[in-house]
Amino acid sequence: MRGLVLASGGSESLGRHLADALGLPLGAVESRRFPDDETYLRLDTHCRDRHVVIAATLDRPDPKLLPLVFLAEAARAEGATRVGLVAPYLAYMRQDQQFRPGEAVTSRMFAALLSRHVDWLVTVDPHLHRVKALDEIYTVPSRVVAAAPALAAWIAAHVTRPLVVGPDEESAQWVQDVASRAGAPFVVMRKVRGGDRTVEITAPDVSAWRGHTPVVVDDVVSSGQTMIATVRRLVEAGLAAPVCLAVHALFASDTDEALRAAGATGIVTTNTIAHPAGAIDIVPLLVPAIADLAGELTP
Amino acid sequence: MRGLVLASGGSESLGRHLADALGLPLGAVESRRFPDDETYLRLDTHCRDRHVVIAATLDRPDPKLLPLVFLAEAARAEGATRVGLVAPYLAYMRQDQQFRPGEAVTSRMFAALLSRHVDWLVTVDPHLHRVKALDEIYTVPSRVVAAAPALAAWIAAHVTRPLVVGPDEESAQWVQDVASRAGAPFVVMRKVRGGDRTVEITAPDVSAWRGHTPVVVDDVVSSGQTMIATVRRLVEAGLAAPVCLAVHALFASDTDEALRAAGATGIVTTNTIAHPAGAIDIVPLLVPAIADLAGELTP
Repeated sequence: MRGLVLASGGSESLGRHLADALGLPLGAVESRRFPDDETYLRLDTHCRDRHVVIAATLDRPDPKLLPLVFLAEAARAEGATRVGLVAPYLAYMRQDQQFRPGEAVTSRMFAALLSRHVDWLVTVDPHLHRVKALDEIYTVPSRVVAAAPALAAWIAAHVTRPLVVGPDEESAQWVQDVASRAGAPFVVMRKVRGGDRTVEITAPDVSAWRGHTPVVVDDVVSSGQTMIATVRRLVEAGLAAPVCLAVHALFASDTDEALRAAGATGIVTTNTIAHPAGAIDIVPLLVPAIADLAGELTP
Repeated sequence: MRGLVLASGGSESLGRHLADALGLPLGAVESRRFPDDETYLRLDTHCRDRHVVIAATLDRPDPKLLPLVFLAEAARAEGATRVGLVAPYLAYMRQDQQFRPGEAVTSRMFAALLSRHVDWLVTVDPHLHRVKALDEIYTVPSRVVAAAPALAAWIAAHVTRPLVVGPDEESAQWVQDVASRAGAPFVVMRKVRGGDRTVEITAPDVSAWRGHTPVVVDDVVSSGQTMIATVRRLVEAGLAAPVCLAVHALFASDTDEALRAAGATGIVTTNTIAHPAGAIDIVPLLVPAIADLAGELTP
């Protein structure tokens, strides 16, 4: 089957990178906004009989959803045989049940909506917690790519005597995986969340690790409060300046400053979301997952 | 059937007004954004066995779509018997066919998407052009409310010796309707559009109307270029300072200034979109259309 990569709004650089990694052409998409802020979209490329791979990372998802739906439906209208979605960051994985009566279970609603427009889905480390697998909420086949090997390789290459630190017990298993792949010891902190933006971190006794460089790892950094609080506890405990590492960089630029102010050397993330901190390239890891769902695609 | 009005994000004042006009309670909706810009939504009201009327005007639609879908689906999950949508301004009525190959026919795509989440739709003067009726693209029942009577009543009450002016031949029939309801004569200009934001207007001989006050009427004002060009032609022809009137106010505040600079006395619109110019209240006109689709609703 012949393949074609299309980039949805805001994911142009991901699309180019993905097309290179897959050895497929990147289709031209003309997109702009009318003066009334509606989206205009035109495929300036042939989709007929092509298996289309859409690149669309879904951080800050609300304004991205309609343009993505339009792109997928336009590809179908132009004769694409299949339309798959590569969303290295997948939105709306948080609200997967009602914590208070009347809450919209947006995780299921968003999954149901997306499942109507794409034939398959590839993502990187979605926030699976109570929902244990994407199949519970997505009705289309999906593959989850683990960023742990890429984080571990980065640690092994860049940090001497690393101590991998997880900010909460929820992440213990994942942190252990990163640490063991990096051949490093690990500790896990305890987190008490006060609201969306406040967090309390308590540390176990880490005095034995004073000769190591702490590497704080987390899946998502958005407000950065968890990571900042973790860095503070480690510095208070007399450890060396921590290195911060995350999969998904949802934070604004001042988070990097705040982490440095708290005593960290800085933060490095993957490129699931376009961000200046995104030095760890996960795009090569997407290729086998896409091949698994789409079969062999040729230019 | 007991009814309940819910306001989607940005349409809170419309929702309150609509609830008053329908004599129904306005349900409390708790809505906020997480630090990562995802939407949190909670119905703080009982929907069980209620016919829910959602107020959501759809100007600048892309970021509004997901919160609207979440609200409709949350109402269903909480036991609403039916969920209707009152969108005084309906988005994506422009691109109703392909003008160039590969274009996304967003009009049909948006209609198909909305039709999956609501049971009926009420709107005001949608941009029906090649699509002659909403039923061609919406699979749910709909009612179109005409703003012409409200515009005509405003003209009759506020303008002495009005001359109703339509900016293009496309709008001739609608302009004639407004004029005849206001008991006023009318003329129609000719428009040549150069792109999204440039427009050329030519006027017929209007010298016979120098004793009248021109009232330029249009359905949508977004960039304002059409109306500004029309005002210029009228002033050049020696007519009195034109009054500008529109149904849907999609324009930014500097359009009002530009219209005054071109020689108009200012612009007045309906309140289909919340806007400082929105002095003409169309909410009472919505009530019979809603009753037609929803039946009699009690508090």
